[in-house]
Amino acid sequence: MTEKKKIVLAFSGGLDTSYCVPYLKEQHQAEIHTVLVNTGGFDRQELADIEQHAYSLGSDTHQTLHKTDDYYEKIVRFMIFGNVLKNNTYPLSVSSERVFQAVAIAKYALEAGADALAHGSTGAGNDQVRFDLIFNVIAPDLEIITPIRDQQLTREEEVAFLKEHNVDMNWSEAKYSVNKGLWGTSVGGAETLTSDQPLPDEAWPSPLREEEPRTISLAFEEGEPVSIDGKEYDPVELIRTLDETGSAYAIGRDIHVGDTIIGIKGRVGFEAAAAMLIIKAHEQLEKHVLTKWQLYWKDQLSDWYGMMLHEGQYLDPVMRNIEAFLSDTQSTVNGSVFLKLSPYRFDIEGISSPNDLMNAKFGDYGEMNKAWSGEDVKGFSKILSNQINIHQSVNNYD
Amino acid sequence: MTEKKKIVLAFSGGLDTSYCVPYLKEQHQAEIHTVLVNTGGFDRQELADIEQHAYSLGSDTHQTLHKTDDYYEKIVRFMIFGNVLKNNTYPLSVSSERVFQAVAIAKYALEAGADALAHGSTGAGNDQVRFDLIFNVIAPDLEIITPIRDQQLTREEEVAFLKEHNVDMNWSEAKYSVNKGLWGTSVGGAETLTSDQPLPDEAWPSPLREEEPRTISLAFEEGEPVSIDGKEYDPVELIRTLDETGSAYAIGRDIHVGDTIIGIKGRVGFEAAAAMLIIKAHEQLEKHVLTKWQLYWKDQLSDWYGMMLHEGQYLDPVMRNIEAFLSDTQSTVNGSVFLKLSPYRFDIEGISSPNDLMNAKFGDYGEMNKAWSGEDVKGFSKILSNQINIHQSVNNYD
Amino acid sequence: MTEKKKIVLAFSGGLDTSYCVPYLKEQHQAEIHTVLVNTGGFDRQELADIEQHAYSLGSDTHQTLHKTDDYYEKIVRFMIFGNVLKNNTYPLSVSSERVFQAVAIAKYALEAGADALAHGSTGAGNDQVRFDLIFNVIAPDLEIITPIRDQQLTREEEVAFLKEHNVDMNWSEAKYSVNKGLWGTSVGGAETLTSDQPLPDEAWPSPLREEEPRTISLAFEEGEPVSIDGKEYDPVELIRTLDETGSAYAIGRDIHVGDTIIGIKGRVGFEAAAAMLIIKAHEQLEKHVLTKWQLYWKDQLSDWYGMMLHEGQYLDPVMRNIEAFLSDTQSTVNGSVFLKLSPYRFDIEGISSPNDLMNAKFGDYGEMNKAWSGEDVKGFSKILSNQINIHQSVNNYD
Amino acid sequence: MTEKKKIVLAFSGGLDTSYCVPYLKEQHQAEIHTVLVNTGGFDRQELADIEQHAYSLGSDTHQTLHKTDDYYEKIVRFMIFGNVLKNNTYPLSVSSERVFQAVAIAKYALEAGADALAHGSTGAGNDQVRFDLIFNVIAPDLEIITPIRDQQLTREEEVAFLKEHNVDMNWSEAKYSVNKGLWGTSVGGAETLTSDQPLPDEAWPSPLREEEPRTISLAFEEGEPVSIDGKEYDPVELIRTLDETGSAYAIGRDIHVGDTIIGIKGRVGFEAAAAMLIIKAHEQLEKHVLTKWQLYWKDQLSDWYGMMLHEGQYLDPVMRNIEAFLSDTQSTVNGSVFLKLSPYRFDIEGISSPNDLMNAKFGDYGEMNKAWSGEDVKGFSKILSNQINIHQSVNNYD
Repeated sequence: MTEKKKIVLAFSGGLDTSYCVPYLKEQHQAEIHTVLVNTGGFDRQELADIEQHAYSLGSDTHQTLHKTDDYYEKIVRFMIFGNVLKNNTYPLSVSSERVFQAVAIAKYALEAGADALAHGSTGAGNDQVRFDLIFNVIAPDLEIITPIRDQQLTREEEVAFLKEHNVDMNWSEAKYSVNKGLWGTSVGGAETLTSDQPLPDEAWPSPLREEEPRTISLAFEEGEPVSIDGKEYDPVELIRTLDETGSAYAIGRDIHVGDTIIGIKGRVGFEAAAAMLIIKAHEQLEKHVLTKWQLYWKDQLSDWYGMMLHEGQYLDPVMRNIEAFLSDTQSTVNGSVFLKLSPYRFDIEGISSPNDLMNAKFGDYGEMNKAWSGEDVKGFSKILSNQINIHQSVNNYD
Repeated sequence: MTEKKKIVLAFSGGLDTSYCVPYLKEQHQAEIHTVLVNTGGFDRQELADIEQHAYSLGSDTHQTLHKTDDYYEKIVRFMIFGNVLKNNTYPLSVSSERVFQAVAIAKYALEAGADALAHGSTGAGNDQVRFDLIFNVIAPDLEIITPIRDQQLTREEEVAFLKEHNVDMNWSEAKYSVNKGLWGTSVGGAETLTSDQPLPDEAWPSPLREEEPRTISLAFEEGEPVSIDGKEYDPVELIRTLDETGSAYAIGRDIHVGDTIIGIKGRVGFEAAAAMLIIKAHEQLEKHVLTKWQLYWKDQLSDWYGMMLHEGQYLDPVMRNIEAFLSDTQSTVNGSVFLKLSPYRFDIEGISSPNDLMNAKFGDYGEMNKAWSGEDVKGFSKILSNQINIHQSVNNYD
Repeated sequence: MTEKKKIVLAFSGGLDTSYCVPYLKEQHQAEIHTVLVNTGGFDRQELADIEQHAYSLGSDTHQTLHKTDDYYEKIVRFMIFGNVLKNNTYPLSVSSERVFQAVAIAKYALEAGADALAHGSTGAGNDQVRFDLIFNVIAPDLEIITPIRDQQLTREEEVAFLKEHNVDMNWSEAKYSVNKGLWGTSVGGAETLTSDQPLPDEAWPSPLREEEPRTISLAFEEGEPVSIDGKEYDPVELIRTLDETGSAYAIGRDIHVGDTIIGIKGRVGFEAAAAMLIIKAHEQLEKHVLTKWQLYWKDQLSDWYGMMLHEGQYLDPVMRNIEAFLSDTQSTVNGSVFLKLSPYRFDIEGISSPNDLMNAKFGDYGEMNKAWSGEDVKGFSKILSNQINIHQSVNNYD
Repeated sequence: MTEKKKIVLAFSGGLDTSYCVPYLKEQHQAEIHTVLVNTGGFDRQELADIEQHAYSLGSDTHQTLHKTDDYYEKIVRFMIFGNVLKNNTYPLSVSSERVFQAVAIAKYALEAGADALAHGSTGAGNDQVRFDLIFNVIAPDLEIITPIRDQQLTREEEVAFLKEHNVDMNWSEAKYSVNKGLWGTSVGGAETLTSDQPLPDEAWPSPLREEEPRTISLAFEEGEPVSIDGKEYDPVELIRTLDETGSAYAIGRDIHVGDTIIGIKGRVGFEAAAAMLIIKAHEQLEKHVLTKWQLYWKDQLSDWYGMMLHEGQYLDPVMRNIEAFLSDTQSTVNGSVFLKLSPYRFDIEGISSPNDLMNAKFGDYGEMNKAWSGEDVKGFSKILSNQINIHQSVNNYD
């Protein structure tokens, strides 16, 4: 008697991955092992419901991998160090989680001795490439099965198939596709498929609940956020707390327009209160404590890091090298940032840091002349003008 | 009889440059020729007042150079093309004007047959280097005289000297040093000399005058702003009109923390409603019409362009090369951007462009699968994973 | 009666493309229109022989597109401006020609009203991607047919098929695959498939024919080579003449190790006497006439330009933007470079240029002190040390 | 009774620094403490001679700091990791030693409780800025004294002054100024002051002594050179041995044309056999073992690292960050490189490495098709062409 093929399926409980369970079981005469990597987007009850749903669909085993702390440690931390905002806007709220999940799933499949990996991505987005790429690298000998992409099914066809298989689930279609995670929530559909329309107020998951402005203090140690208003948290808890606070002001809503991995332009809404507050605070603190060229090269490398992370190329070794660079820059990124929260926006009021280069012990801005004279600056300007001066002289232009 | 030395003095009418007129006249037994380059910061009445003040101080001639259109054409245009925001924040509101003024003054001095150039900059800021650098390049044979920097005078000493010389002017000291220009107004002093305090509401020149949100349409042609809500303006007029509209909402206020040319950190407030609206709109439009690598390289070059412009190195020929690059990218930057103005903030609602890569004629996002298949993406991911795959295989890591 | 399918085949006369003619004719019941784009690799006799061979294979029409001057104007020129050497070594001798040929062939197919484009590339190299990519962009509605890649045929199978079809051609197999072009000749096979073995002397097409060292003068105008030892040539003729001279000394031989577009490492020999002499001379001249930051940014953009050209992404509009930048930098790249040719190597002896920044009219190196004083440099160093000084002081390190 | 001022003088024993000893003693009524930092340029006898000479000039104490190993560990190592060649040519043979020496001297002065630091640099070169900058940072409270720069003395005046002070030393003037160090020897003067003349054969310190070509094997571990032809050496000894071998072939001679820190162009000869052999071998090995993007970013950062090192900005913390990046990339840079030495040149014959990405265990170049199909590449090309395709379609160009 031959053993049955073992397929590990990346499972979220949504329509597409629900479809995959009975479909793969039937089509491949295979064992189906569903796995969900929780990077902070699901609470205990949701995870239990999804598990139950997996089994009701016919999953042979279902596994929840609790990886929120690990996701912070391996990825979020570096996005903070790098002030990573794709296209100067998007904190990679969902894309970075997908990449991390793909890694965890591929490793799980190897440990489980699976024959194949399956994911429910469609053929028009970024996630398919992220899953494919990372599965290819971590588990190159495993087959990759992608029923939704391959069959190009409509929603109606999927529903019909599931009903035929006596599946009972919530069939109602949301107007927006919402993906919640630790580092933000993406909102796609309807208006985001146009170039010219904004998302209406009701599309955003977190309604405005606070009107009264409030200033908070967010402290960093070696580049990592450690406390709010003096109260210490572990990183994940801090992010959740800050997100709760910020989203009450409807802070962190925006629309990202960018290049998908497959070359088309995409547009998606997101709300990411904690991510935006942390990144902007961290960036401001760095302006005070890092040198000009540290800021310059951090920008170059972080921008690239964000792009490759977004595009699923997380496992290229250059990413580890960039992480080494970024970590090395953070030793002096210590101090507090004061953020004033108001409805729909926040202002950075200032910072306080033992490493602040603006408040050098040997003199402040007004008295700085102790350290140099007018003659020094005159000489500086003279020498700095030398090359342009020669260029102009040699080339006789005006 | 020997001719008197001719000194051309960059003149703004403030305390420092006022001091310079009698001081230079006396100290150098020289003709003093004051010159003011208006790049949009002064209106007709102010210019007339300053002229009268110059003569009352003893200026031999006073010249106003009207250079606002030229400043737009030579500098602002490229800052728009490049979405130039220093340290991701500051539109170089005043610094770019100073650079342009220095060029105009140095050329004026050459034409006037001057023996020396004078400026009233202090020894702690950026302007001294900008003036020095550019004077050195354009007029290398002229002496540069900087009384304020050299003597390190206090305000009180300057006032006393002027009163001794029977000068009558407004002696009251403003709490903030405010510099107004076409591309924004800087606000320095008091809180900006600390790291941790925000500017209070009353420090900002433009109070909130509009509460009712409003959406406007800003149109671009080859990267340049050409109309608001369908009404065409010449560029300078458009900037003024938009600034009027935006500043009524108190839009464009922020604090810039950055590295001065002389290596210390500086902090300064600015309000720049038009600059922020135009740059953010232009940037969003570009996300729709430029390719990924156009966006990438524009960012690299623009960032550098902004840094060198800020630091007075405007005459390095690489700046002309970068302008050629930037100009070449703008042929498809056409269309309208929809901006919703609210008190203290604005949102970009969307764009409409004949060059929008998101609405390709051969299919929109949903239907894009016409152009490729799931197999194509599978192959794409496979090939894209090759190198990382080999790297992992060769190096046996996990 | 239906019309026959029209296939335009990129044809070189080698075994792979020879196979394609009868194969496509038979398999697709199609008209076969062979086309060869000569970018300088073929002489008149070779072109005539290939034409005859095409017809003997059954080609319905054969077209030779004479594009050497155009290839210089559109591509070689910019590789010179950019001193393009892939991985600091390889002048893109063959890869840039392939890209240019693909463009010409796709346009030819459109004009000819073809239904499909075919190329004979195998599945392990770069050329397949270059052809595919460019055909996809220029002629997105035409089918792309790739018999060699699809069937993964051995050499023996191709020979057998052609003999069955009564084809008579030279069946002998060369030890090395040699591709000759205007900008160099690539040599692959045998040792280049290893990591550790050099190509033997006999593998190189141009044997050493000159032992006596000789110094030549190569002059540039606005970045383009215009004369050798004072004798003017049009660009293509200059390259041919210089190549003749240089290859007699066996100059320009090297091995390129690099990343193929499909992610594997590749190793290939090349000889490119003219390309190496021109690029190294041009680079040296630029060191004398461009400013530090012009050199810096030219390097950044040229490196990228070379990479995208190599990888077939020539049609991305960023390439036009970079060409605009590069062209703009060349206005002062004028003068002569003195090159001493010896067996297997050359030295740059010096340059002479009206735009040389080293021989500024206002003083030479020794006398330069006229332009500044020791005090100026002292001030320069002082100010330049400010930020590091403050950083050290604030952070108490040693 | 007041204590005498203590001056620490960077001392090389040449005319300029010899002049400084009696001059400073006399002029400042100070104790003179000479110090020489040996980074590999002096042998035991030379150091003893210099010490004796220092005392004969009147030095109160003379100290030799033996820092060759430290110089390798702190600087040379990173120049190897980064394949640092300024302007694609110059291994920073002398400039990097000067920077390192300045650091050691400033620290020595602090420990010695000195009041002032002195150096004998002239006012036209780079060294003055290197000394000034680093002294300013490490010992900001110490006066910097620069007699040669300040007085702009001629050689004759210095000689006359020393003879007056009964100094006896070799007064003969060399045609070339030669600076020897571990990482190479610079040769300046006569022809290097022109743009168009090469250095004659007799100007180079190491004459050709070997005619017979020879292939050597140079092995690296984690990026550092560890053995030659299988024989292990400690790093400094390896460099000396390799330099001995290579310079016998007159390998590593070249002329560097570059931008000095003070903005003028400079031209200097150098011979650096070991540096060129190690860097080129290391670079070739990296092409085999690093990914495309590792190579890309290493180039960016190394180029910058070399520039800042050259310009004396070694203490900017970004340099430490870049070192962290570079170190992190070297874990797979292991293996041997085969170098064929011939008179005046060398060829890299190949490499052998356990981390070679070209010889992936799962298949070599020819068989690589196991890992992907022609269809995969077709899909890859299709997806890769998407954006350019859309751009072309939207913008209707041809």
